[in-house]
Amino acid sequence: MFESIALFGGTHGNETSGIQLIRNWQQYGMPARFNTLNVSLNIANEAALAANVRFVEEDLNRQFTLERLESSASSKEAVLAKSINETFGPKGHSQTDFVIDIHNTTSEMGATLIILEADEFHTQLARYVKQQMPEANILVEDEKPYLDHGYLCTIGKKGVMIEVGGQPQGVLREDVYLLTQTMAEAILDFCMAYNNGQIDAETLPKCEAFRLGDNVSFPLNENGHRTAMIHHALQDNDFKPLLPGMPVFRTFEGKDILWEGKKETYPHFINEAAYFKLDVAFATSERIEL
Amino acid sequence: MFESIALFGGTHGNETSGIQLIRNWQQYGMPARFNTLNVSLNIANEAALAANVRFVEEDLNRQFTLERLESSASSKEAVLAKSINETFGPKGHSQTDFVIDIHNTTSEMGATLIILEADEFHTQLARYVKQQMPEANILVEDEKPYLDHGYLCTIGKKGVMIEVGGQPQGVLREDVYLLTQTMAEAILDFCMAYNNGQIDAETLPKCEAFRLGDNVSFPLNENGHRTAMIHHALQDNDFKPLLPGMPVFRTFEGKDILWEGKKETYPHFINEAAYFKLDVAFATSERIEL
Repeated sequence: MFESIALFGGTHGNETSGIQLIRNWQQYGMPARFNTLNVSLNIANEAALAANVRFVEEDLNRQFTLERLESSASSKEAVLAKSINETFGPKGHSQTDFVIDIHNTTSEMGATLIILEADEFHTQLARYVKQQMPEANILVEDEKPYLDHGYLCTIGKKGVMIEVGGQPQGVLREDVYLLTQTMAEAILDFCMAYNNGQIDAETLPKCEAFRLGDNVSFPLNENGHRTAMIHHALQDNDFKPLLPGMPVFRTFEGKDILWEGKKETYPHFINEAAYFKLDVAFATSERIEL
Repeated sequence: MFESIALFGGTHGNETSGIQLIRNWQQYGMPARFNTLNVSLNIANEAALAANVRFVEEDLNRQFTLERLESSASSKEAVLAKSINETFGPKGHSQTDFVIDIHNTTSEMGATLIILEADEFHTQLARYVKQQMPEANILVEDEKPYLDHGYLCTIGKKGVMIEVGGQPQGVLREDVYLLTQTMAEAILDFCMAYNNGQIDAETLPKCEAFRLGDNVSFPLNENGHRTAMIHHALQDNDFKPLLPGMPVFRTFEGKDILWEGKKETYPHFINEAAYFKLDVAFATSERIEL
């Protein structure tokens, strides 16, 4: 049973679609069919919002490991994380059954549901969302235990993220907003059905998902400057198969750099602006069935 | 005669395509056919680049009015503007014949050449660029005298801007990079032809251009919050005709707001991230012939 659900936008202050959805549901109300659900609507980082930046001092969505929450870290976001954890957690012994945290990306990832465990519960959730919203992508980040992640959503007993793109930081696109709203509603519809005992492992069809692999970096020269950009054949092709020998980068001298993996992979977060400083070009994933 | 040409990128520190073009031409050299041109390659705002932001304290590309340059303004960008003006200007009595300043936008403006005067020279330049690059857009911002603009490029005897999109801030897209490079080369090709006496007003065909109109704001409520977003029918349709009665905004309550202008207009800078804080939704323009 989901007794308490917390919905967050603005964990990154320049990701406007989740922020706007929260603001609109606060102002105009959520769809009436969710009236029996106990949902709190929250903006996570108001200071980052006001400054129209991802974060003021540190990435809020990396502060929620048990270590960070118990540390003496004192950046604006570390302090904020402790406060959010007190109100909605505490992580590991949470008073909140389910946390849904809404993000957007400059990558063309469409509407992506990120789950951190591929257990029965999340498998049912993923199948349900995919059934309601066939265009959705399911991304599984279960490379480490749920509680080891630093994501805000992990302060809930269960937690997932909505990640929609492509949308520039600080911009609200109607298409991205509507995908965000549709996915948020699909997740809440699942919560309703779950509470009503209507979720049956037998009836939901298996669905396609992508299991996170590794980050791939831009090629850098000895001074740490990039020597290539994402190849036009890869740009905007998130979750499309990338086969060995297909172009990945184009160097500034006009040469193609090919994918040298042993088998196909499904790139995502291709050319995501927030990973600029980290020189991350994209992440790989493996196509699986959930 | 163009004795001296200054090419700038990084006037806004998160507009990566111009920055990368300058860096690449510095490292690998410009195309050999420009060897006879005296071109300096410059990054305008290194501090903003390092921070991956548009500007540190104030928009550098609004600092170059005579009033600002002579004022005691002491923001990082005001000081930087004075220094750039000393090196390449001074504005009004410039040692630099031609300044080309490279920008990018989150709007789908394609490759746009912004000229600030529609005199014979700029008309020839526009026609030449359009002939070389039929997909280019020509935007004429001649609503006030050349020297009254605060743009960096106005420190040159002549100055223009390249504006290419859509590209999120802090992201480098190959398509946007290549359009930027192509337009920069077309302008330099014009300079070569002009110096060689090969520009003949008779032979260059007239071209389509857009004359800047007004900024259109997002609808706001009494608290200054937006009540609507760019309509999906307008999004990404920069420089396409917007006719009276066509949808412009969709409110968060699901209603359409229609264009109430008396005649068609050609919107651009639609949903540009940098105008977020100003609540500017787009700019209008009139289609003209140059």
